[in-house]
Amino acid sequence: MARIILHEANKPFPITVGDKTVYICQCGLSKTKPYCDGHHKLTMNEKEGKTYFYDAEEHQHELPDMYPK
Amino acid sequence: MARIILHEANKPFPITVGDKTVYICQCGLSKTKPYCDGHHKLTMNEKEGKTYFYDAEEHQHELPDMYPK
Repeated sequence: MARIILHEANKPFPITVGDKTVYICQCGLSKTKPYCDGHHKLTMNEKEGKTYFYDAEEHQHELPDMYPK
Repeated sequence: MARIILHEANKPFPITVGDKTVYICQCGLSKTKPYCDGHHKLTMNEKEGKTYFYDAEEHQHELPDMYPK
């Protein structure tokens, strides 16, 4: 009962109601979901056109190209 | 500049401010993120201990066990 989802956004989504703003995690890495906890900083060195995963120790891994040219 | 994230929740997360409530997608399948659009209904038949992905046509696929016993 789980699924893998591709996340392309690397910044939180602000929602403002009245004078209160909450920041919703969009990178997928927050430990306090649905709220942002700043973990999107880990994604700042991701390269255009590449896809990554992050292991339990928060280490970044680039998915290998399955069908290299 | 993208990453795969495992989502285990299959219900939205309600945030209430004053008399307004918004529902935040947690299943990962919403087309109106960060808001819920009801796509978590697709996950209702997911089995405990299994992991899935959903293709562009919203078809559900079970990830094969990489190391079957």
